[in-house]
Amino acid sequence: MITEAEQRRAQAAAVDLILAAGLILRDDERGRVEVADFGLGSLEAEGAQILTLVQTERLAVKLIALTPWQALPEHWHPRVGDDPGKEETVRHVAGDLFVYVDGPPTIARGRVPTGKEHLYTMRHELVLAPGDQRTFTPGDKHWFQAGERGAVAYSFSTTARDVLDQFTDPDVQRVTVVAGGDR
Amino acid sequence: MITEAEQRRAQAAAVDLILAAGLILRDDERGRVEVADFGLGSLEAEGAQILTLVQTERLAVKLIALTPWQALPEHWHPRVGDDPGKEETVRHVAGDLFVYVDGPPTIARGRVPTGKEHLYTMRHELVLAPGDQRTFTPGDKHWFQAGERGAVAYSFSTTARDVLDQFTDPDVQRVTVVAGGDR
Repeated sequence: MITEAEQRRAQAAAVDLILAAGLILRDDERGRVEVADFGLGSLEAEGAQILTLVQTERLAVKLIALTPWQALPEHWHPRVGDDPGKEETVRHVAGDLFVYVDGPPTIARGRVPTGKEHLYTMRHELVLAPGDQRTFTPGDKHWFQAGERGAVAYSFSTTARDVLDQFTDPDVQRVTVVAGGDR
Repeated sequence: MITEAEQRRAQAAAVDLILAAGLILRDDERGRVEVADFGLGSLEAEGAQILTLVQTERLAVKLIALTPWQALPEHWHPRVGDDPGKEETVRHVAGDLFVYVDGPPTIARGRVPTGKEHLYTMRHELVLAPGDQRTFTPGDKHWFQAGERGAVAYSFSTTARDVLDQFTDPDVQRVTVVAGGDR
């Protein structure tokens, strides 16, 4: 759960990161950045700001903005019925982006969120430069983290059904609850 | 047919447009911008520079760079067998981009290439601002033209099989032939 104030701050931070990256957003887009805490209630450590640019039955394009050191929790895109599962290419745009995938543990720049070591099992670190990209096929476990400057990246994928993503952390709830605590 | 010199000039112009738009390209990407004259031999009037960022069995992401007043000829994406046809969203990034679709004729900013009036039949003009986007469903006839500043746009689509695109102009050949005439 996040408060409305947290949601507003995170949206503003995401818009700032995206515009600082030189990308252009329409006014209506600035107002609909999704703030996701993944139900973990610790948005600065674990979460993401996501702006959906295209979402059809066949494909999805999103901008992902991460605030400094924010980790997008480890997950994968499973097969669902006849659907082979979401295929996703993440293209880094600006800031520091660390991607963790299966392979020999090389984590050095990133920091697993405190007390969550067992929930971030992929420790092979890819440090992306702007323009670098990585494709995840269905079933590939992965997580992301921004470095000290935050990060902005595109996600190009087959149609996104976020609620079907599977997370290593059983406490993850993909739908973020916003409390009106500060009204 | 274009010459190698034309190809090099068009690639350089495309890279300049893309970088001036604030986008970041890797070195390997700068060298593989496709220059398409659509077999019409009049690249400055009819053609496109296309950089494929993602191309899998399921989706494609491309950057389209048009030089000033260059028109990307009228075409549509047909159904092919079990494939419902390519679905495409074009998102304008920088410069002047005019899009022509079915509807009442309103063309004012753009200019149909001379002598080709019967081959550019869609005359409903959409003047896109950076950040604006338009989705084309299979079968939708459309063509594009850059204004005086050229244009850069993303194309997000289901998997692209360019050779299956259908063009109003029967002389179009989707595979560009490059002559070594100036070597």
